Amino acid sequence: MSEHSPLDLAEGDPFGPHNLPYGVFSTAEEPDRRRLGVRIGGYVLDAGAAAHALGSPYASLLAQPGLNPLLAAGRTAWRDVRRALTAWVTVPAHRADVEPLLHPLDAVTLHLPYEVADYVDFYASEHHATNVGRIFRPDGDALTPNWKHLPIGYHGRAGTVVVSGTDVVRPCGQRKAPTDPAPVFGPSVKLDIEAEVGFLVGTPSELGRPVPLADFREHVFGLTLLNDWSARDVQAWEYVPLGPFLGKSFQTSVSAWVTPLEALDAARTAPPARDLPLLPYLDDADEEEQGGFDLRISVEINGEVVAEPPFSSMYWTAAQQLAHMTVNGASLRTGDLYGSGTVSGPEVNQRGSLLELTWNGRDALELSGGKRTFLEDGDEVVLTAWAPGPDGTRVALGEVRGRIAPAVV
Amino acid sequence: MSEHSPLDLAEGDPFGPHNLPYGVFSTAEEPDRRRLGVRIGGYVLDAGAAAHALGSPYASLLAQPGLNPLLAAGRTAWRDVRRALTAWVTVPAHRADVEPLLHPLDAVTLHLPYEVADYVDFYASEHHATNVGRIFRPDGDALTPNWKHLPIGYHGRAGTVVVSGTDVVRPCGQRKAPTDPAPVFGPSVKLDIEAEVGFLVGTPSELGRPVPLADFREHVFGLTLLNDWSARDVQAWEYVPLGPFLGKSFQTSVSAWVTPLEALDAARTAPPARDLPLLPYLDDADEEEQGGFDLRISVEINGEVVAEPPFSSMYWTAAQQLAHMTVNGASLRTGDLYGSGTVSGPEVNQRGSLLELTWNGRDALELSGGKRTFLEDGDEVVLTAWAPGPDGTRVALGEVRGRIAPAVV
Repeated sequence: MSEHSPLDLAEGDPFGPHNLPYGVFSTAEEPDRRRLGVRIGGYVLDAGAAAHALGSPYASLLAQPGLNPLLAAGRTAWRDVRRALTAWVTVPAHRADVEPLLHPLDAVTLHLPYEVADYVDFYASEHHATNVGRIFRPDGDALTPNWKHLPIGYHGRAGTVVVSGTDVVRPCGQRKAPTDPAPVFGPSVKLDIEAEVGFLVGTPSELGRPVPLADFREHVFGLTLLNDWSARDVQAWEYVPLGPFLGKSFQTSVSAWVTPLEALDAARTAPPARDLPLLPYLDDADEEEQGGFDLRISVEINGEVVAEPPFSSMYWTAAQQLAHMTVNGASLRTGDLYGSGTVSGPEVNQRGSLLELTWNGRDALELSGGKRTFLEDGDEVVLTAWAPGPDGTRVALGEVRGRIAPAVV
Repeated sequence: MSEHSPLDLAEGDPFGPHNLPYGVFSTAEEPDRRRLGVRIGGYVLDAGAAAHALGSPYASLLAQPGLNPLLAAGRTAWRDVRRALTAWVTVPAHRADVEPLLHPLDAVTLHLPYEVADYVDFYASEHHATNVGRIFRPDGDALTPNWKHLPIGYHGRAGTVVVSGTDVVRPCGQRKAPTDPAPVFGPSVKLDIEAEVGFLVGTPSELGRPVPLADFREHVFGLTLLNDWSARDVQAWEYVPLGPFLGKSFQTSVSAWVTPLEALDAARTAPPARDLPLLPYLDDADEEEQGGFDLRISVEINGEVVAEPPFSSMYWTAAQQLAHMTVNGASLRTGDLYGSGTVSGPEVNQRGSLLELTWNGRDALELSGGKRTFLEDGDEVVLTAWAPGPDGTRVALGEVRGRIAPAVV
């Protein structure tokens, strides 16, 4: 046994054995061979090689270039694999087998760990929806009449979901201020972020069969941070009457790590009190059916924290979103990903978009590198988050990082 | 050579050698073996087996269970494969090889012939958009201010695109009449059709690289009829502010046959005159960049024709939609499918939805089986279409058929 093992983590490491998120990596030696990895501390365990070395019955499921087969394997497999992984990184007798299969994080390339099937984005923060309503419809009600009756959502572009670290090329598009006689075309001048949490579906469902609230954990494997980059000027001109399209579809960034729901048992929390009675398929008064999570998100621009949105403040939960998304009989596929919607809390410094933080550009943020209303070329945005883990630990989510590259014109 | 060959088609058969759409079939003997097929008259040619028998260099591309590899192979391969197929079904010397590989249509099962990557739906008929605007916003302008500046579109659910012949289970959902105090939940009472044409992307594009108008045919392989089933009551309650979601996502039906664009050269047509100048990326004044098609669609309910929408009346073309969809840098994937939007012509009997045909239920259709405002359980809807082919022929598109099954409650 080595004296300084990578498995000897610092006290309170938020990527300890209580976390164990999944990713996909390759090494400099074999750049074309993608492998399932599990993060432990500052290392990636080659999960397929470990399963092989230790004679796991899940060796073939883990010796894959992506996460989809494990996602499709279902909740019993998820639990058993996690149990095995926990043993491999904690039981001293396994160290000799496991240590050679650990790669330092800075020596690997991380890839999008799953193939996205359908991507849906929700709008579940009351604070966010209220802020947006006040900004865009100052003379009307902040919330539309349907808002507290159903979790509003729409489909986004699955093909442009990319892994953390991918540059964001500033999109071009049409924009038109209300006073302009005609739209103009060019690079977006209101490029924004949306700090969100994404939920990843493992177990599919049949066409015509709604998924009830209580079955959330049978279908959803885990979660990820998600930055729903938004071109506000493009969006404002295009979105009536059929919703956001090009203002969103250029890119959506997700963590390289998927945190299994099982790692977040200590973070389960009740959603805010409901102001209006809910239809039965959305009614989560039963505590067992509540899908809230206590995640503390942090938004950094160029290394400076600009907001700390609390996920526990979301009005609609991921379980309600799943129930709603399928109540019309729409089926789920392995790899379906759905975003929570921008996470904004009640306080000014808890808002998860620049639209809200600067009130659509009216109140610039004073950063050490200069004022910001919306993003400038070269800006780097990083989302991080942690949740309470067992026994006073913290569970960190994988970060989402993206730098703005100039428009291609 | 047999005396009555399946290749001896009736004069004017719209599925003659000038058409040759692609599909995927299985036989009763081998129900689990899906194979690429090409329709000729009332038969399906086993394309992989024919390519093998005739020593084609494309044998491995055609010996696939789905169309995606051929889609991904690009325009040169599409042209070469089509040329080979044309020879196989027309050159007498090939008959002995080809005839045993023909299966009567009524002896095979047809499957969804491609995996849908992203699904986008547009809103490109001025007549449709005007009708919908008048019905839902009687006090405002029929068209939103952006309508003639950009082809409005939104993402739909790729996972619930199904092949013609699949029943449509009536969806449940929330609905709320303006005078109701709160929404109610139950089976949709305004289940509708939308007669559309779908365009199928073959060649992918890079993230950050818009596809210009002129490259439409480099990327789009072919087209299909598409029925965008719509629950109008669900849609009306949910769609502000982020667009249609559950009112559409329960099911979208497409033809079992994909018609290659090359079969529609004689159907190319100029779009209607543009009322407003277009931004350069959408300006198709150059005839070479025009993506209009003269397709004559027919909508039947229970065997009775209720509308004949002319696709040539669409304001926005498929080439403009592709250019718009990618102008923000969004990439294309093989299998991306986009719908034209409901096809409605200027005349009352050219409207492609019951919403328009019955003016939101005000004017029932008098069918031989009884009055109809929206669809009733058991109703069967069939979309068909044809286009002018070479030398006075007709090119038929594959039908889209669907029967309404009762809601599961």
